[in-house]
Amino acid sequence: MKAEIIAVGTELLLGQIVNTNAQIISKALQQIGIDVYFHTCVGDNQERLMSVLETGFNRSDIIILTGGLGPTKDDLTKETVATFFNLPLNVDEGSLSDIKRYFAERGRPITQNNYKQALVPQGALALKNKVGTAPGILLNKDGKIIIMLPGPPREMEVMLKGEVIPYLAKMSRDIIHSKVLKFYGIGESALEEKLEDLISKQSNPTIAPLAKMGEVTIRLTAKAKSRSAAEEMIKPVEDEIIKRVGEFLYGYDEESVEEIVARLLAKHNKTIAVAESCTGGLMAHKLTNIPGISQYFERGVVSYSNRSKEELLKVNPDTLKTYGAVSEETAKEMAEGIRISSGADIGVAITGIAGPSGGSPEKPVGLVYIGYSDSNTCCAERHIFSGERTDIKERSVNSAFHLVRKMLKNLGD
Amino acid sequence: MKAEIIAVGTELLLGQIVNTNAQIISKALQQIGIDVYFHTCVGDNQERLMSVLETGFNRSDIIILTGGLGPTKDDLTKETVATFFNLPLNVDEGSLSDIKRYFAERGRPITQNNYKQALVPQGALALKNKVGTAPGILLNKDGKIIIMLPGPPREMEVMLKGEVIPYLAKMSRDIIHSKVLKFYGIGESALEEKLEDLISKQSNPTIAPLAKMGEVTIRLTAKAKSRSAAEEMIKPVEDEIIKRVGEFLYGYDEESVEEIVARLLAKHNKTIAVAESCTGGLMAHKLTNIPGISQYFERGVVSYSNRSKEELLKVNPDTLKTYGAVSEETAKEMAEGIRISSGADIGVAITGIAGPSGGSPEKPVGLVYIGYSDSNTCCAERHIFSGERTDIKERSVNSAFHLVRKMLKNLGD
Repeated sequence: MKAEIIAVGTELLLGQIVNTNAQIISKALQQIGIDVYFHTCVGDNQERLMSVLETGFNRSDIIILTGGLGPTKDDLTKETVATFFNLPLNVDEGSLSDIKRYFAERGRPITQNNYKQALVPQGALALKNKVGTAPGILLNKDGKIIIMLPGPPREMEVMLKGEVIPYLAKMSRDIIHSKVLKFYGIGESALEEKLEDLISKQSNPTIAPLAKMGEVTIRLTAKAKSRSAAEEMIKPVEDEIIKRVGEFLYGYDEESVEEIVARLLAKHNKTIAVAESCTGGLMAHKLTNIPGISQYFERGVVSYSNRSKEELLKVNPDTLKTYGAVSEETAKEMAEGIRISSGADIGVAITGIAGPSGGSPEKPVGLVYIGYSDSNTCCAERHIFSGERTDIKERSVNSAFHLVRKMLKNLGD
Repeated sequence: MKAEIIAVGTELLLGQIVNTNAQIISKALQQIGIDVYFHTCVGDNQERLMSVLETGFNRSDIIILTGGLGPTKDDLTKETVATFFNLPLNVDEGSLSDIKRYFAERGRPITQNNYKQALVPQGALALKNKVGTAPGILLNKDGKIIIMLPGPPREMEVMLKGEVIPYLAKMSRDIIHSKVLKFYGIGESALEEKLEDLISKQSNPTIAPLAKMGEVTIRLTAKAKSRSAAEEMIKPVEDEIIKRVGEFLYGYDEESVEEIVARLLAKHNKTIAVAESCTGGLMAHKLTNIPGISQYFERGVVSYSNRSKEELLKVNPDTLKTYGAVSEETAKEMAEGIRISSGADIGVAITGIAGPSGGSPEKPVGLVYIGYSDSNTCCAERHIFSGERTDIKERSVNSAFHLVRKMLKNLGD
């Protein structure tokens, strides 16, 4: 079954909002084994919507439209679909009484234009809107399914999951299951070169690499009759990938590197403290986004000035003078300093040049040292990151988390 | 001039990512008076991309494609466009040497598939990628403009604003100019009620209110032949709005509250230091996103534990015992403590309960105190914020910046 999603709304084309509905619908359809081949956004314009419907009708079995079901004049999805199929619009009594009740419950008068929301093309089914006023519509016509959902994501999502997906799932014979492998320390093209033969010969499961900020992920997606059958199909492919590039694998699915670090800290009952210079608090911010981290995160210091490095982290003024604030030596002393002063088990430090100014030929913008200290080890890593100030901050923090992850891994998984 | 945007990438159709590129491009085109009539997403599939190109070519003057320019096999945008126009792909020497330099600088070997990124359809112009490796492409063919941009939003945006928009702006006859007024301390519906008559009668400029995290903005948008003509149309409407709700106005356009704070710190030559508990470094992170802030930002402390509040901020243990870590008294002592220990002119402190756990009937999740200290004043504000952990962090920091802004404003604008 081939599906496509058509979003109706000029606000999308003006860039006032982003089409998150298409993402939510795509994910949900994928899970019940329905392939989505196209997304389209079109404005509140009958002629252009007609042309998009025409194209969609010729190439897809299922068309899901979002938006344009409201009470105002520029809401014209239903009217256009009815015109397209040459169907009259009739009042749906169930929808009308729902709309009346909605307004009565809120003690608000029902305005004339709200009656328009109860109109449904002849032969179509109205879908209840549990969160708002505009009902959805499901039309099974000429062997195709046309579904119209409200534009506001909350209303759309409740209707999608409550009514549309159960309806479509009955028609789809397959399910789709994905597993994501996450890699650090290898580039997208290097990873792909090592897996090229696998990627090109695999079709079920598919192997899809994707590069993100400082990491690469591989999504394995299988289509099968059941989740366990899909997992069984994924297993040998995953094993082969791990055999080739397993040394770079650090995690699975949605778990972020900071969540992995938090999990490992809890597992080994270790506390952490961080000293940040160029990242300015971003590492502490990310850690403290994780609920419950206060048990393992002792403190953070944003030692932006040299004075603060000396006072709060006991960095030797001679080190700063001889090697500079951005150096391996300073990074190590910062990590050691924050660990000892805080009493935490692990100290991490980041010092670098986030730019845009402050670089030199020897110490360019993007040069970052990451220091690590525990009771056995004190070390530092050197990196050169590219991008803007905020990218360099992001990549630095990402690498710092990976360094901590690796050190914690040595204690056992 | 009619434009449409085509995003290429199966990950969009699987719902793995959302098409923010279309939003960014739409906004930018709107500002130079180019209408966007369609957005399409299509997978990494030559045949379907061909059909989308065909449709786009028949209805639009400008086609902007994003994605599918990378080194891997499923990156096929360029190849498909070249096939569509029956053009050979040639190596662009400038792009090739950029790619070689990119890898050399990082000390990484260049893999074979990276050479593919330097290929350009004959007669097209390569657009430099300042952030990544895949160059963009601009093709002026048969009276139409086809522009191909990389998929990663960071790379796309730099290229769009640096190269594409200046190129297209020369072709457009009208310009669209917007001015954004930013308000703090008044809700969206209260603001809208005071401006209702203006909003409904205005069409050029339009008046569009928008509620964001802890603030409301009003965008005034005029379409005119020149920027100065647009500004003249906006002026009287702006004046009327300020007459009615000017007491809540705090800023204009893209300038964030932290940028305003940074500007006022520079103007009055004041330094700042921050002590954060529940916000975990987010305030320091936002300040340090601003280039050049190191002159005015002395240090930050993330005092997550009580121990760190005592050691780093000299908060009295009795205060913590009597009033608790989340209290007006602690907030004031934290602000005073960070100011005095750092030697900065201004100390700011945030302490609260970000949740999801840790709340009680007397001190619920969302209770936050913001402390402020300078040589004349020491005070604290109490807030109750709603939302998730990350929302509460965000709103707390936002309010802390507004408090500092108000105090600095007293010194003069």
